[in-house]
Amino acid sequence: MEKMDAFPLTVKSSEKQETLCIFGTGDFGRSLGIKMLQCGYSIIFGSRKPQMSNLLPKGAEVLNYSEAAQKSDVIILAIHREHYAFLTELTEVLSEKILVDVSNNLKINQYPESNAEYLAQLVPGAHVVKGLNTVSAWALQSGALDASRQVFICGNHSKAKQRVMDIVRTLGLSPLDQGSLMAANEIENYPLQLFPMWKLPFCLSTVLFTIFFFYCVIREVVYTYVYKKEDASFRMAISIPNRVFPLIALTLLALVYLPGVLAAILQLYRGTKYHRFPDWLDHWMLCRKQIGLVALGFAFLHVFYTLVIPIRYSVQWKWRNITATQVSLRKDNPLNTTSAWLSDSYLALGILGFFLFVLLGITSLPSVSNMVNWREFRFVQSKLGYLALILCTAHTLVFGGKKIFNPKSLRWYLPPTYVIALIIPCTVLVIKFILMLPCINKTLTRIRQGWERD
Amino acid sequence: MEKMDAFPLTVKSSEKQETLCIFGTGDFGRSLGIKMLQCGYSIIFGSRKPQMSNLLPKGAEVLNYSEAAQKSDVIILAIHREHYAFLTELTEVLSEKILVDVSNNLKINQYPESNAEYLAQLVPGAHVVKGLNTVSAWALQSGALDASRQVFICGNHSKAKQRVMDIVRTLGLSPLDQGSLMAANEIENYPLQLFPMWKLPFCLSTVLFTIFFFYCVIREVVYTYVYKKEDASFRMAISIPNRVFPLIALTLLALVYLPGVLAAILQLYRGTKYHRFPDWLDHWMLCRKQIGLVALGFAFLHVFYTLVIPIRYSVQWKWRNITATQVSLRKDNPLNTTSAWLSDSYLALGILGFFLFVLLGITSLPSVSNMVNWREFRFVQSKLGYLALILCTAHTLVFGGKKIFNPKSLRWYLPPTYVIALIIPCTVLVIKFILMLPCINKTLTRIRQGWERD
Amino acid sequence: MEKMDAFPLTVKSSEKQETLCIFGTGDFGRSLGIKMLQCGYSIIFGSRKPQMSNLLPKGAEVLNYSEAAQKSDVIILAIHREHYAFLTELTEVLSEKILVDVSNNLKINQYPESNAEYLAQLVPGAHVVKGLNTVSAWALQSGALDASRQVFICGNHSKAKQRVMDIVRTLGLSPLDQGSLMAANEIENYPLQLFPMWKLPFCLSTVLFTIFFFYCVIREVVYTYVYKKEDASFRMAISIPNRVFPLIALTLLALVYLPGVLAAILQLYRGTKYHRFPDWLDHWMLCRKQIGLVALGFAFLHVFYTLVIPIRYSVQWKWRNITATQVSLRKDNPLNTTSAWLSDSYLALGILGFFLFVLLGITSLPSVSNMVNWREFRFVQSKLGYLALILCTAHTLVFGGKKIFNPKSLRWYLPPTYVIALIIPCTVLVIKFILMLPCINKTLTRIRQGWERD
Repeated sequence: MEKMDAFPLTVKSSEKQETLCIFGTGDFGRSLGIKMLQCGYSIIFGSRKPQMSNLLPKGAEVLNYSEAAQKSDVIILAIHREHYAFLTELTEVLSEKILVDVSNNLKINQYPESNAEYLAQLVPGAHVVKGLNTVSAWALQSGALDASRQVFICGNHSKAKQRVMDIVRTLGLSPLDQGSLMAANEIENYPLQLFPMWKLPFCLSTVLFTIFFFYCVIREVVYTYVYKKEDASFRMAISIPNRVFPLIALTLLALVYLPGVLAAILQLYRGTKYHRFPDWLDHWMLCRKQIGLVALGFAFLHVFYTLVIPIRYSVQWKWRNITATQVSLRKDNPLNTTSAWLSDSYLALGILGFFLFVLLGITSLPSVSNMVNWREFRFVQSKLGYLALILCTAHTLVFGGKKIFNPKSLRWYLPPTYVIALIIPCTVLVIKFILMLPCINKTLTRIRQGWERD
Repeated sequence: MEKMDAFPLTVKSSEKQETLCIFGTGDFGRSLGIKMLQCGYSIIFGSRKPQMSNLLPKGAEVLNYSEAAQKSDVIILAIHREHYAFLTELTEVLSEKILVDVSNNLKINQYPESNAEYLAQLVPGAHVVKGLNTVSAWALQSGALDASRQVFICGNHSKAKQRVMDIVRTLGLSPLDQGSLMAANEIENYPLQLFPMWKLPFCLSTVLFTIFFFYCVIREVVYTYVYKKEDASFRMAISIPNRVFPLIALTLLALVYLPGVLAAILQLYRGTKYHRFPDWLDHWMLCRKQIGLVALGFAFLHVFYTLVIPIRYSVQWKWRNITATQVSLRKDNPLNTTSAWLSDSYLALGILGFFLFVLLGITSLPSVSNMVNWREFRFVQSKLGYLALILCTAHTLVFGGKKIFNPKSLRWYLPPTYVIALIIPCTVLVIKFILMLPCINKTLTRIRQGWERD
Repeated sequence: MEKMDAFPLTVKSSEKQETLCIFGTGDFGRSLGIKMLQCGYSIIFGSRKPQMSNLLPKGAEVLNYSEAAQKSDVIILAIHREHYAFLTELTEVLSEKILVDVSNNLKINQYPESNAEYLAQLVPGAHVVKGLNTVSAWALQSGALDASRQVFICGNHSKAKQRVMDIVRTLGLSPLDQGSLMAANEIENYPLQLFPMWKLPFCLSTVLFTIFFFYCVIREVVYTYVYKKEDASFRMAISIPNRVFPLIALTLLALVYLPGVLAAILQLYRGTKYHRFPDWLDHWMLCRKQIGLVALGFAFLHVFYTLVIPIRYSVQWKWRNITATQVSLRKDNPLNTTSAWLSDSYLALGILGFFLFVLLGITSLPSVSNMVNWREFRFVQSKLGYLALILCTAHTLVFGGKKIFNPKSLRWYLPPTYVIALIIPCTVLVIKFILMLPCINKTLTRIRQGWERD
């Protein structure tokens, strides 16, 4: 539900106005205080030097730490972990109070234990709740909370957690219970991440793109210039990317299914499923979804780069010349049915493959994959996924047609990109086919149901 | 939040290490045990023959059922319902304990009551909680929990449920409270489903596709071969599918709005809205969303099959010949403004219809439809939906143009597909128009607000 | 999880059948009663004149208010706020009971306080819970709960709220705790909204479309008719919209980034970030997402209007004539490499810009934006967003090419639309570039970290 900005800033006097205490008058503390005042709380700041704090929001009181803590049973700690030490002096005042740790670190896993767990050790009498660290001060200020409406909360004391979750709801945010304080480490690492699962697919595709872009420039621009003295440099804008994009898309799609095939081989070899996979295989399997989505991105680009072909100047120029030649030759030009079949087939296969690809992409949206059960998810990602791989491989095969094994298509011994694009997909499909032979498949199924070979 | 695989496997000794008990040493029990050990729990397996169980994960203890149960107040039952009988002997030990039923059946509604309710009757002193049955053992093992992070939980005892939900959270999963044990039946059926709501639209579209594919093959391939001795078989790759896809897309889109219209007629006839609709109409109304999405899929294919037209070999061949003929005739060929209008109109109508169609598809994504209220949802699905239907019907009408009622377009008395595609949409639009006449609409609105005619 | 319609309508006698009381026998009360009977509750209606109520569902009892209230500890108030007054007479009976306020108003913020808060004042002894008002009676009836499975609940008494949430779950809906009764106002306003954040972008784009459509009609249809006596009216179907769509798409995309730039200037001028922005800027910033999505819609239409160019009758006619002229002139027509570069570049830039645009659209889906943290969200929406703006601006610049500053492209002193389309994007990019100069950027960063200039 969109919280309206027109939220009443004035609170009726009849309402019991709850008091919250914020330790720390830095940016986050102040932003949080302003937001809480707007939402009808009365705010008391705790500060080392209360008389120095002249930048605080109107309506908030400032006291020293000990006095401030006595005024509320919920104390929000908007200070850095390095300055937690002084809290040991307040142990008595803080006893049975709810301490909300909103701190963040500068690096992932910066300290051996999470800030919240450290705090719980420092002030054993208090109920420590971790949360609100994933919200940005800027977002609290501006009300533009598009990304961060979700607030992860964890803590060992159930009632304290509920209390904090209620406050979070009043601020217009959605609390998400993450369990006990053991989850604090993860909650503290969360805002520091920058697409950790996307690094591998992104680097992989960047490297592949760079290599094959220059590969194609050599084959199509340099070669043409050397042998025909023609300037084909304009091919670098669309023609060459449109050779590299499908190559990467198909290769990455095959790389989504390769680890599953490797895992099956490993399980057959080991005779058990209870041994852990090597780390590289584990990591590979965990970012299959991301690899697939990057592949979909390249497929998307390939589709649109292909669809603009007829409106490109150079293509229209070529087509006009072909027509002009045909007219001037006054030769009858009958329809070649085989060419018609090949041309239509590879286009149809490509479109169907892309359609399934998009379908896979849609079902990997979190809200869609939450709606399907495990059986349905496996059906879509495994059956439909392999079908997409088969269709796209067939699309490339038919596109290549008879030219694939024609030595004339080599330039400086370099084969065309569609030949290279076929290597990994065909390997995956062949191994998968072998694994599906009844004798092998039976053993594999038994292993996956828990059977172990001795 | 993505649970990182780098979750600390070692638990600090200062933490109170909770002990969980798992009855059953089958595949699921073992996988669950391994996962729980990794997440910092200490695990005791209960087994019929503890000394026989040598395949258990390192760090887990194995005892007989009674001893194991005494060591923990949470007992996870990873055994089949058929073997529940022995639990009656443990009634005393299990009293006041939390029994987590993770069992699944082989068929939907296999037993008169759910496994969890049966268990609650067997061991009345225990607090039975249903859950974790929707997670696959394989997913627990491999960490690849993409699809099944959501875990449905139900139970009559609130604290027991909370306890189990906390354990589920610690495993890195998201518990979803489904209420009392009455929901257990549904939770047990859930993992056995395979797209139940998609069966009708899928079968319908398969049947429609098969019928009309052969219909078009007769009209365009066989007919051409018989009368012109031309091999037009290559049309089966793109041209013919591109006649069948829009036919199915438009028909299915109309079938989304037909049940609403039928329901209105039924309510007008009965004079009340409080009578139940016949079952077939109910089922039809419940899978309208799925029918619409399948229609969108066919519309998507139609769009891309249409956009590749200019890069098809056979089309380029035809266009070249037309140009060659025009050149050789040396005849002036003025622009026919009517043709230009018709051609541009049907393309524009098609694109706008497809755009609204895609918009409807996006708003039917669970996360988007959760953001809109009932009034907004009705506006989008009803107003925008009818607008899409009108645009797509107009697209087909303008495409047919003057040829629709031209007897020359019949081949062996078979009309072109776009004529067939118009039947249901036009029917729906006409009835809808009649229902919107003020006199009828007024009565209908009163009935829908609760008024009853006697 | 999809609640199946095959939910058992008969409840086993062994189950303790809970009794719920509904005050009010209007449409919503009856629909709710039927649904609750189906879900296994026993229902007692409270009515002013119990003997008059002959339209109630089978199986439900009807008593007068006081008697009905005594039979259950949960009372659902399905009556209008105006009729709440009689409840003061029942204060004793209602003491310690759970009162569920399901009422809705006719206008947003119709009364000074929410209905639920008013109710809590009327019957201070009861535990008032707000909820179920967002569900439509029609949806309850027909089971078609696609849009409204989410039910917002709020209340001051935690156990009462839990109790109502359990009932909501049993009805097959998902309760969403919204905190204390202070949220009731918002929950009551929620179902009355009709896309409040979409109004500005929608109106803006409608106005822009109308103005520039007529602008183009004057430039391309009227002008052509006046000077060449040609009927170019068919251009209104595709050609002219395809000039207006990209203009609006690019302008709206720039308007997404303009408020951020203005806010930065304002902060630099004021020397602090703690002052509120003017209301118009606040509102503008809050609907940036919606402006961006409308822009994406226009970009989508532009893409497909462009891709159908080669299959338009008028374009094919033109291309045929160009080829015919070339053939008849028998002139050699060498490839102009500069034209090839320009043509391919603007297409490539456009596709890449559209790709990033689609990516931004996908990440603004609620379920996707919930998966990313604040840092990732900023990266995507800010970095990728600016990249999309730069690519689309470059696309337009290259498309215009040398003609942009050519006075010959003026018609009746009116410049082409792509010149107008460039004004706001270029302005935004230039200011952004200035703001990124190290000296200015440093001050801005300090201000955004909480520093204040005095």
